[in-house]
Amino acid sequence: MQKLPLPLERLITHFEKLPGIGPKSAQRLAFYLLHVPFHEVKAFADSLMAVKEKIVLCEKCHHVSEQNICSICADGERDQSLLCVVEQPLDVLAFERAGIFKGLFHVLHGAISPLNNIGPDQLFLFDITERLEGVDEIIMATNPTMEGEATAMYMKDLLAKKGFEGAITRIGHGLPVGADIEYADSLTLSRALQGRTKA
Amino acid sequence: MQKLPLPLERLITHFEKLPGIGPKSAQRLAFYLLHVPFHEVKAFADSLMAVKEKIVLCEKCHHVSEQNICSICADGERDQSLLCVVEQPLDVLAFERAGIFKGLFHVLHGAISPLNNIGPDQLFLFDITERLEGVDEIIMATNPTMEGEATAMYMKDLLAKKGFEGAITRIGHGLPVGADIEYADSLTLSRALQGRTKA
Repeated sequence: MQKLPLPLERLITHFEKLPGIGPKSAQRLAFYLLHVPFHEVKAFADSLMAVKEKIVLCEKCHHVSEQNICSICADGERDQSLLCVVEQPLDVLAFERAGIFKGLFHVLHGAISPLNNIGPDQLFLFDITERLEGVDEIIMATNPTMEGEATAMYMKDLLAKKGFEGAITRIGHGLPVGADIEYADSLTLSRALQGRTKA
Repeated sequence: MQKLPLPLERLITHFEKLPGIGPKSAQRLAFYLLHVPFHEVKAFADSLMAVKEKIVLCEKCHHVSEQNICSICADGERDQSLLCVVEQPLDVLAFERAGIFKGLFHVLHGAISPLNNIGPDQLFLFDITERLEGVDEIIMATNPTMEGEATAMYMKDLLAKKGFEGAITRIGHGLPVGADIEYADSLTLSRALQGRTKA
C-alpha cells in the first residue's frame, strides 16, 4: 500500500503528540508546512530549540525566565513580604498586566488533579516552605475550579503544618466587572454574596 | 509591563501562524513544550526541517515524494492511459488504500475557491495538458463541494479547448456504503437518483 514519505509521517506523528491536536489536524498542519517557505519553517524549528535551550524556570518562583532568577524575583523594589501563589506563568502575566500587585509570585505549574494523575509531587508546591522567611501574607490565586480550590486547601494545610504564622488569603470570588447578574451562575452568585463588602 | 521571555513569545507567534491555531492554543502549545524532554523537542524540530529538505512534489503528478518522480509515476505496471485528478496528496492515499485504481494521478493541491483567493493559477492545473499523450480517460475526483465541482468544470473546459479527445468522467456521487437513506441530505439523494444504475 502506498504510504506517505517517511519525513511527512514523522512530522504528523510529532504534531499528533501535541495537546488538542488529533490525527486529522496533524495531517493538515504537516501538509500546510509543505507550502510554507523554507526560511519560515527554519525559523519555526529554531524557535522550538531556542525555547528548550534558553528558557529556564526561575529557581525561586518557577516563573519562566532566561535567567536563573527571574526579573520579578530579582527586583529589589518589590514587596518581599507578600507572596502570590498561581497555577501558571500566564497567570503571572495577567497580574502584571493589571499592575496592582507589587509582591512576589510562586508558580505551581498546575493544580492538584487526581483525575489527570497530577498530585502535589508533580507541582512546585513543597518548596514554598523554603521561602517563608519574612513573608507576612500568602495569597492563594489558584483558579476558582475544583482543582484550584483543592490545591489552595492542600497548601493551607501544608503551611499550617510548617508553622507559618502569617496570613493566608484566597483571592476574592464574585461577579466579574461588567457582568450581568441575570446571567451569573448560581455558584458565582453565592460566592459573591459571601464575599460582600461594605458599600 | 512584564512580558514573556522572547524565545517563548517567538514560538507562540510561530504556532499562531498555523491554520486553526488561535492565540490561546498557541500559548498552550508553547507552554506544553516547556515540559517536554529536550530530545523530543529536538526530534520535532528536526522533522520540520526534514520535511522541507527531503520532500518534493513529483514533477509529473505533484504527489508528495522523496524523489523527483514519485513511486506511482515511476511504476511501469500502472495503466498510463488513465488519469485521476484529485485535490490533495491525501486523496491519493485514500485511492491507494482502496486499491482499485491502477492508473496515474494528477494532484492539484487545492481547488478553485474565489472566496479564499485561490484561482486556477494557484493550482497545478494547467500542466495536465502536457500529460495528455496516450491518455484515454481523465477521471475528475475532486471533492463533491462547490469548489471541487467548479474545479472539475473548469478543467473540463480547459481539456476541451486543448482538443483532448478521450473521455472525461466525474467520480460517482450517491449514498456512501453503509449509510441510511433516512438521514441522507437531499442533495446527496438527488445525486444518487440521477446516478442510478441497472439493478
